[in-house]
Amino acid sequence: MQARRSSRVSAPRRKALHHPLDRDLVEDLVAANRTLARLGVLDAFGHISVRDPRNPHRYLISRSIAPESVTAADILLLDLDSQIVEPKDEDKLLYRERFIHGEIYKARRDVNAVVHSHSPTVVPFTVTRAKLQPLLHNAGFLGLGVPLFEIRKHAGDGTDLMILTPNLGKDLAKKLGPEAAVVLMRGHGDSVVGPSLPNAVFRAYYTEINARQQLAAITIGGPINFMTRAEALTSNHAMLNASARPWALWRKRALAEL
Amino acid sequence: MQARRSSRVSAPRRKALHHPLDRDLVEDLVAANRTLARLGVLDAFGHISVRDPRNPHRYLISRSIAPESVTAADILLLDLDSQIVEPKDEDKLLYRERFIHGEIYKARRDVNAVVHSHSPTVVPFTVTRAKLQPLLHNAGFLGLGVPLFEIRKHAGDGTDLMILTPNLGKDLAKKLGPEAAVVLMRGHGDSVVGPSLPNAVFRAYYTEINARQQLAAITIGGPINFMTRAEALTSNHAMLNASARPWALWRKRALAEL
Amino acid sequence: MQARRSSRVSAPRRKALHHPLDRDLVEDLVAANRTLARLGVLDAFGHISVRDPRNPHRYLISRSIAPESVTAADILLLDLDSQIVEPKDEDKLLYRERFIHGEIYKARRDVNAVVHSHSPTVVPFTVTRAKLQPLLHNAGFLGLGVPLFEIRKHAGDGTDLMILTPNLGKDLAKKLGPEAAVVLMRGHGDSVVGPSLPNAVFRAYYTEINARQQLAAITIGGPINFMTRAEALTSNHAMLNASARPWALWRKRALAEL
Amino acid sequence: MQARRSSRVSAPRRKALHHPLDRDLVEDLVAANRTLARLGVLDAFGHISVRDPRNPHRYLISRSIAPESVTAADILLLDLDSQIVEPKDEDKLLYRERFIHGEIYKARRDVNAVVHSHSPTVVPFTVTRAKLQPLLHNAGFLGLGVPLFEIRKHAGDGTDLMILTPNLGKDLAKKLGPEAAVVLMRGHGDSVVGPSLPNAVFRAYYTEINARQQLAAITIGGPINFMTRAEALTSNHAMLNASARPWALWRKRALAEL
Repeated sequence: MQARRSSRVSAPRRKALHHPLDRDLVEDLVAANRTLARLGVLDAFGHISVRDPRNPHRYLISRSIAPESVTAADILLLDLDSQIVEPKDEDKLLYRERFIHGEIYKARRDVNAVVHSHSPTVVPFTVTRAKLQPLLHNAGFLGLGVPLFEIRKHAGDGTDLMILTPNLGKDLAKKLGPEAAVVLMRGHGDSVVGPSLPNAVFRAYYTEINARQQLAAITIGGPINFMTRAEALTSNHAMLNASARPWALWRKRALAEL
Repeated sequence: MQARRSSRVSAPRRKALHHPLDRDLVEDLVAANRTLARLGVLDAFGHISVRDPRNPHRYLISRSIAPESVTAADILLLDLDSQIVEPKDEDKLLYRERFIHGEIYKARRDVNAVVHSHSPTVVPFTVTRAKLQPLLHNAGFLGLGVPLFEIRKHAGDGTDLMILTPNLGKDLAKKLGPEAAVVLMRGHGDSVVGPSLPNAVFRAYYTEINARQQLAAITIGGPINFMTRAEALTSNHAMLNASARPWALWRKRALAEL
Repeated sequence: MQARRSSRVSAPRRKALHHPLDRDLVEDLVAANRTLARLGVLDAFGHISVRDPRNPHRYLISRSIAPESVTAADILLLDLDSQIVEPKDEDKLLYRERFIHGEIYKARRDVNAVVHSHSPTVVPFTVTRAKLQPLLHNAGFLGLGVPLFEIRKHAGDGTDLMILTPNLGKDLAKKLGPEAAVVLMRGHGDSVVGPSLPNAVFRAYYTEINARQQLAAITIGGPINFMTRAEALTSNHAMLNASARPWALWRKRALAEL
Repeated sequence: MQARRSSRVSAPRRKALHHPLDRDLVEDLVAANRTLARLGVLDAFGHISVRDPRNPHRYLISRSIAPESVTAADILLLDLDSQIVEPKDEDKLLYRERFIHGEIYKARRDVNAVVHSHSPTVVPFTVTRAKLQPLLHNAGFLGLGVPLFEIRKHAGDGTDLMILTPNLGKDLAKKLGPEAAVVLMRGHGDSVVGPSLPNAVFRAYYTEINARQQLAAITIGGPINFMTRAEALTSNHAMLNASARPWALWRKRALAEL
């Protein structure tokens, strides 16, 4: 994932210069947006970022558009204060909640990708007392804890529940803590993190799937045989590699539809 | 959104004359119909209207066909008594329930668009005692109140539950009241209003989404942490602008499929 | 819907002769099969028939294939004993449960179309004690009664639950009775009838929708405000005409995909 | 389903030699993978195998990729110890859980196809006490018993719930027993077997459908009128043949999309 730079610019290269970001990584991010939109995790809102492998103090994210319509030309580079770095000369509309990403990258060096979504079956678990817990082996990462961010405690009553300031981003990152992969956001959705973009996409998807299956298990009734913490940790570790399989499929499919 | 008129008509213009309505607004209305059909809010029934920006005493609506098949040629202009204004010389079948639209426009000057649907997960909330309340920040507008119109109280037992007369339209508009964005219609669906067409489409969609999530929260059990009224009002205000993002995607996608 | 016959057969007509059935009616039946498959009412099983308007003692139905793959060449003509009339010279596999159709046509002169399906959300209502009742105005026809056929009472324990004989077809038609539009079949699905094919398709679809909404209303809890019998009858009457609107859309869409 | 072999190899045949497996059977397996992915039984994980009709001590399975992307070139031949037989000269990544297949073929001579999936509505029945039982006639095979494999009893706490060794494969096959068509795997999914590939695909699909309908019946409440054992056995027998109808549709559709 080396960045390509050029001093002399030919016509075909001019377009590349417009995005001196790593082309594969940009395509990864485009594919991630389109994949999670197709899988129903992202609706017309939500956003995904990836830390710049060239410089850990920066991250890539789309300008403010619906995830399913993101293309390479929409990808921007921001610093960890979530201010735009590239392209400087354009007036792109930024996601208002981009502080989610920047502040989590500051707080969590192990995190290289962040997905913020209104994951439809996760939202109900943010407004009820039942704890979202791992029952499907693909969702073992939920065993790292699923803290709930109640914005009312941080910003008071009367907000629109959104993370519109660096301070709220910091509060959210603090609630996520040093280990968890997912932080629930009351009445809003969740933010999911991972050591890589494919893994964060995988986790965002299986957070939704586990929520659906936990809802079904609650409907069936009686005690639920959740994964033990030991099982969850082992599964999470196994899935760090196994997430490559769906990612190969998802990426290919997303880019083929461009 | 200027209307185009011409006195002398060339061949290509004749078609335009057939629709002396604002072309962008007509396309908006076509896109709105197709979008809410694709998103599962509208089935083969339901209808959407937009107030004519040239003359607030008129509104645009499709002739009586299934929303997903609406094209520009199907758009008509009606007055607020829901009588046809344009085209005068054709015998178009009108929606029998068009009085929903006309009477709401009369009663609510702040309303510029109306969506009437059989929103599938909203219907169950029209026949049970649980109140539909905002739990998702995108649905803050539900905090403006969600009155229930029980047609049996107005038209007696034995109707087909439909709003087939101006008087029933007036009764419905009265139940909607001066502030609410949504009025539930027992055993039938809902009518959703907004200050703009994109916002009314947005609200119709998130009314359905909030209903699904409230149903899931009920399944999970225990008290539900709904939005406070202050949060709902702030969120509603924020979404008046934010609804432009999904609309840009939805409109583009709908028109590309024509 | 006049049948076309010809004595002298030119090349293009030879194909038509192969189906001396009314072409529009055959297309209706093809469209009905594909529509209910697309809408999820029919899976790879199930079948639809229409009474022959030329001769009320005969009906049209596909040979035994999955509904979503039915074409005009698959349509056969059977008599009311469910024996093949046309084409005589071919060895087509017939649906084993075709007696559902023939025996209902014998018993119910008002019925001109029959849909048998494993409608997915209807099946649970065939194995529980809750009564499927109309709550959505489009499903007013459920107010005509929804009898349950328990095959165990007629064929004893140990059958595969299927209607494989004329006698079981007669028993089912008797359970349907003189008025109902739908008969539930325990652990199996339902059979839905109507005065016309568009209306039977409409009723099969809204039986499934009403079942989904009743399931949601049960989840919400408390008493359900079902339609009164008077409302149901009025709505049923109104929908005899109104079912033309979705049918126009469905037919066009199904035939366009051929 | 005769295997094609050739001693002298022309250019077009070289590719065929690369797969000296029966071409129809390979296409069946490709179609099975794509069909169950399209039907939502398989997600990006899961795998399907078929016993080699030329040699019952071998089976065909894809290399380790997502089922919906399997092509003929991905099909491998393994022995019953789940070691690769063909192609020998290539370094294909094998499914880590392939022992599910090999050990079941060893234990069950009547089984000629195995589907392992994370069937989404089956998983909740693996972590609750309610028994999955047949209520839909297509799912009569569930009357042969639905044992639950609790891996914690066999491999201790702290595994990732996966069948990564021949011994765990043997334990799973033992839990499946001599008669059952389905074994549930706690927090993971299920493995479904059949006398033929079309029948195993059919059973995997209707296991998911029956789970959805049982979940709905639980929501409706009260006692559920499940199939009797006699009905289940009769239905299972009938479906051994009847599964040919959906298979004809599914296979054609899957291969048309290649």
